[in-house]
Amino acid sequence: MNLSTSTQVSAGDSDLTYGTGPITWDDATWILTSSFIIFTMQSGFGLLEAGVVTSKNEVNIMVKNAADVIFGGLSYWMIGFGLSFGVDEGVNPFCGVGYFFVDSSNEDMGLLFATFVFQLSFATTATTIVSGAMAERTKLSSYIIFSFLNTIIYCIPAHWIWSEKGFLYQLGCVDIAGSGGVHLVGGVAAFVAAGLLKPRMGRYDNGIEPLPMGNAVNTIIGLFMLWWGWLGFNCGSTFGISGGKWKLAAKAAVVTLNGSMGGGAAGIIYSVLTKKGKYDVGYIVNSVLGGLVSITAGCAIIRPWESIIIGVIGGILAIVFVRLIDKIKVDDPVGAVSIHGICGMWGLLSVGLFGGNDTLENLTKNRYGLFHGGGFYLLGIQTLAVVCLVTWTSVMTLLILLPLKYTIGLRLSPSEEILGADVVEHSIVNEPVTTNYSIFFEIKQSG
Amino acid sequence: MNLSTSTQVSAGDSDLTYGTGPITWDDATWILTSSFIIFTMQSGFGLLEAGVVTSKNEVNIMVKNAADVIFGGLSYWMIGFGLSFGVDEGVNPFCGVGYFFVDSSNEDMGLLFATFVFQLSFATTATTIVSGAMAERTKLSSYIIFSFLNTIIYCIPAHWIWSEKGFLYQLGCVDIAGSGGVHLVGGVAAFVAAGLLKPRMGRYDNGIEPLPMGNAVNTIIGLFMLWWGWLGFNCGSTFGISGGKWKLAAKAAVVTLNGSMGGGAAGIIYSVLTKKGKYDVGYIVNSVLGGLVSITAGCAIIRPWESIIIGVIGGILAIVFVRLIDKIKVDDPVGAVSIHGICGMWGLLSVGLFGGNDTLENLTKNRYGLFHGGGFYLLGIQTLAVVCLVTWTSVMTLLILLPLKYTIGLRLSPSEEILGADVVEHSIVNEPVTTNYSIFFEIKQSG
Amino acid sequence: MNLSTSTQVSAGDSDLTYGTGPITWDDATWILTSSFIIFTMQSGFGLLEAGVVTSKNEVNIMVKNAADVIFGGLSYWMIGFGLSFGVDEGVNPFCGVGYFFVDSSNEDMGLLFATFVFQLSFATTATTIVSGAMAERTKLSSYIIFSFLNTIIYCIPAHWIWSEKGFLYQLGCVDIAGSGGVHLVGGVAAFVAAGLLKPRMGRYDNGIEPLPMGNAVNTIIGLFMLWWGWLGFNCGSTFGISGGKWKLAAKAAVVTLNGSMGGGAAGIIYSVLTKKGKYDVGYIVNSVLGGLVSITAGCAIIRPWESIIIGVIGGILAIVFVRLIDKIKVDDPVGAVSIHGICGMWGLLSVGLFGGNDTLENLTKNRYGLFHGGGFYLLGIQTLAVVCLVTWTSVMTLLILLPLKYTIGLRLSPSEEILGADVVEHSIVNEPVTTNYSIFFEIKQSG
Repeated sequence: MNLSTSTQVSAGDSDLTYGTGPITWDDATWILTSSFIIFTMQSGFGLLEAGVVTSKNEVNIMVKNAADVIFGGLSYWMIGFGLSFGVDEGVNPFCGVGYFFVDSSNEDMGLLFATFVFQLSFATTATTIVSGAMAERTKLSSYIIFSFLNTIIYCIPAHWIWSEKGFLYQLGCVDIAGSGGVHLVGGVAAFVAAGLLKPRMGRYDNGIEPLPMGNAVNTIIGLFMLWWGWLGFNCGSTFGISGGKWKLAAKAAVVTLNGSMGGGAAGIIYSVLTKKGKYDVGYIVNSVLGGLVSITAGCAIIRPWESIIIGVIGGILAIVFVRLIDKIKVDDPVGAVSIHGICGMWGLLSVGLFGGNDTLENLTKNRYGLFHGGGFYLLGIQTLAVVCLVTWTSVMTLLILLPLKYTIGLRLSPSEEILGADVVEHSIVNEPVTTNYSIFFEIKQSG
Repeated sequence: MNLSTSTQVSAGDSDLTYGTGPITWDDATWILTSSFIIFTMQSGFGLLEAGVVTSKNEVNIMVKNAADVIFGGLSYWMIGFGLSFGVDEGVNPFCGVGYFFVDSSNEDMGLLFATFVFQLSFATTATTIVSGAMAERTKLSSYIIFSFLNTIIYCIPAHWIWSEKGFLYQLGCVDIAGSGGVHLVGGVAAFVAAGLLKPRMGRYDNGIEPLPMGNAVNTIIGLFMLWWGWLGFNCGSTFGISGGKWKLAAKAAVVTLNGSMGGGAAGIIYSVLTKKGKYDVGYIVNSVLGGLVSITAGCAIIRPWESIIIGVIGGILAIVFVRLIDKIKVDDPVGAVSIHGICGMWGLLSVGLFGGNDTLENLTKNRYGLFHGGGFYLLGIQTLAVVCLVTWTSVMTLLILLPLKYTIGLRLSPSEEILGADVVEHSIVNEPVTTNYSIFFEIKQSG
Repeated sequence: MNLSTSTQVSAGDSDLTYGTGPITWDDATWILTSSFIIFTMQSGFGLLEAGVVTSKNEVNIMVKNAADVIFGGLSYWMIGFGLSFGVDEGVNPFCGVGYFFVDSSNEDMGLLFATFVFQLSFATTATTIVSGAMAERTKLSSYIIFSFLNTIIYCIPAHWIWSEKGFLYQLGCVDIAGSGGVHLVGGVAAFVAAGLLKPRMGRYDNGIEPLPMGNAVNTIIGLFMLWWGWLGFNCGSTFGISGGKWKLAAKAAVVTLNGSMGGGAAGIIYSVLTKKGKYDVGYIVNSVLGGLVSITAGCAIIRPWESIIIGVIGGILAIVFVRLIDKIKVDDPVGAVSIHGICGMWGLLSVGLFGGNDTLENLTKNRYGLFHGGGFYLLGIQTLAVVCLVTWTSVMTLLILLPLKYTIGLRLSPSEEILGADVVEHSIVNEPVTTNYSIFFEIKQSG
């Protein structure tokens, strides 16, 4: 998702630039189609989360995913995009200025609107990551306010990494499709939120083993939707198809798939070895996702076989850290902290280790990772990015959630939590409507 | 979906034209990919409807969605496309002539087949809208005949609006992606059908409150699939990507998303205010869809902030009219009349109020809406379109359904309705197959 | 999916060729987007299979679908693609050599990676077909080894048909999107595997009528996902959009849809006629899929009305052969043998009957089917292809499964089978987690 190129060419017929070169209609097809595919990930997140939680909270978590798009989308349109990619006077290494309430006259609009839609699909993804970690105990009203404000948490680091003016960009940080900007940010916010919320009632009464999934089929279908959507995510991050970009996009597809295969294979083997031959669905889902998050930062600049290694490590990290985070009693029902936070971190760092240079778009600016003879510079920058993102996100999440906690409150009441958010917030009782056969027989008799 | 441009250039190497200019292979990529995305909306409609109805009818409604594609698709291939876009001798402001049983020799086929696939995805959508309003009480055999014949209801107004020879097109009517041609037509047919069918047994025995959803998670996943599919619907309606079309497509994406956010935000707030703080799933789903329907007519020519206003109004209209339609005891289980009919009407009219001109493709032919200083002409034309579509669709739906009602009948018998269409039409009993543990123990003992 | 053209032009800036001409970035957009759509078919297969099997095996079948991508994908990357499309020294009419552990330096990578991703999406589909036939009784460990090794079964016939060096290609065999190379291969492997496994316990105790579906809504949603995914499959098989390819892609979309409509209409009518007016969901699903498989071989070179005929025959064949295969007590829970095997065969042969030539890409090398005056040559070649594919696949499936059967074993134990694979392999009990209201009242009382 490197929006910046060294050539600052005017976009279309206007003199405006958006921190990116001009795009053709071929690029627009690629960017828009990728965006549309990325939005399907929202369905994937929804189904996965609804499948993992108990059935008394499954509708509520779906509504939260809808709220992420509605309210997170509104704030991203109002201020988020501008704080990330605005180029008006006052833009600085910390944040962008301009493009608030995104709009445009006719001639400029192609690049601006295409960029906005693509970035919006990223922003809503980052917010949705947090919803899973807050599941089964968070008031919907507070969550909606959070999803509106979370845009601020997301859009500032996006400026650092992806805007030409951002300080991490200028230092040479490489995060092609957002292991850091999307997943690490989402995962850290998830960690802080889950910690602040405290565990679900009785969660650790019987140890740290995961609770049974409400609907494992939905969980796996959710995984599948995320898996194919990820192809749009990572391949779309070439932000175009013209010139050499299509070659990097094709490479990103292979690297992304290999990362997921590495992660999934590791997770399945790890499950068989540690779970007495059982194939734990949570392990499988988390390890595939862990592999995907891990190769997201370097998807266009690492080699396919390296991607398998990165995916294997990511898959194992995802599984191990789910347990570790449960051990410190931070209750993250869907494993978001581990999958997105820990693997996002590993994804950023892996570029510092395995990063190669592409001669097509020069995404790493002629720098190489440690294992390719580039020394420690790139690894150092990637580490710096991790530190900056973790710090920013932790502080900002607290700044948003603490005021909420001490005003309208974050948590459902104990009795509400036991009843479940579906009935409490939506008046939905999860019982199948049965056929009243007695009426049938009455009619038969009278008919 | 304006297929007509003022330049009548021959398509490919042939002399034929299809009421549209030539397209390039870049345009074909856009049109075909959009079509494929639009077909996924069928899954969305299916899941949404299956989620809303009682579980004893959920399989039946899915089969009806399949029938829409199978039988509606066949009749659209046979006569529908030709009546909309045929250009043979005899074509007139009321209907097209030609292209029946769509086929083509090699050189012409690109534009014709691409156009047909795109239009087919629209036609099946229009038919599917009606299936929801007829749910839980309609004989499948009658519904199949209706879905075959419904093509006629759809394809004539499509000619009026989108063919260069159509009378509404010539007057200057603007309905870019079908608030009128797809949604209003579908909604009015839904209204007539639901009215003719009479309510489900006992529907209003306890007042007009909606019945509980059979499966709210499926409903929301269905909403999500429709939401992302709508991007293909509205953005694909530039019918290409070359020239300035990609800029309008990018704009349509932003306007579409903003409309849905406006609708959804309004629906959530309205629910909290009127439902004692509860977040009604029906309200949320209907308001997002209402917002989407409302900005479909003007998706490429209204501004992003105007789209939010249009979406807010559409979202509220969708919710309010669901109640009003229940008040007059027209039983529309999924709210299709309100969402597609009322919001489709509002979508058409909103172009007359907010419509601007684009300098790229000149979609409004230099006309402006009332709020942009264009006076009442455009609003008048859009109102005329509403009147024509409502009249045509009402009359035609009656002409198709009344003969069915008085021959093979439209409704299930009362006992069939109570048992549910799943068991009556498909011999499916919605009970989970349980594990027979007793057999297990027998084997254990004998083994 | 004809990767070979008569012009051997170098790809990009390199001297390498991949048995295909050069592609542009426009082609890359088409190929990659199609691949991404094809991967969504994996979700479709998963849901359809999970819907058909009893609920005690639904999670297990989803995991098998994930394993197909993970382990089948790994082996395809390691050796499968190379055995199909490698062009190194030693390549021969039987198999390719080269491109093992697919990787590339910068300049070559566009075409290679795009081709690999597209082919990978085909390969995982072929493997997944088999999973359904082995459902409800196969050990997951054995299945995983099978899914890893199944690549070999798939990739060799792919070389025969789609590589310029392949002997069937050189004889003039036409199988555009894989009725033979994907579906017949998958269906035959499914037949051998199901036969070797023996029927599920008690399957035929009460005759050969199909067992009730676990979840018919999921089955139909799975059908829908496959249906729209098939458009990517067949239209993407032009392997590009430039030149005349976009015209064939548009034609393939119409032909594919018409085939499905023909199949579905036939299935619905057949059900009504033979099932006392009932609309059997299995018949409907199988007939639509049968129609789709049948027109996959000739999707770009048969005419729309011919496609309906081919689809009708395919739809009926799918339904009839499900019964026949049950009659010989080969227990195929999802009908994969009939749908993919029999209809795949019919698809290959139908090209020999209905095949026309296209003047754009000359896919049939100036040959015509029997009904278009081409005599028996093309039909003979297509028949030869059927014989070769059936023989190869039968023998190879036995060579892979027999050693597994007599070492670690293919089947679950009887008690495991009765309990179901979900609890045995994944420790998942398919019971809804209910709300413990008693705790609620305790809190109320103490609170």
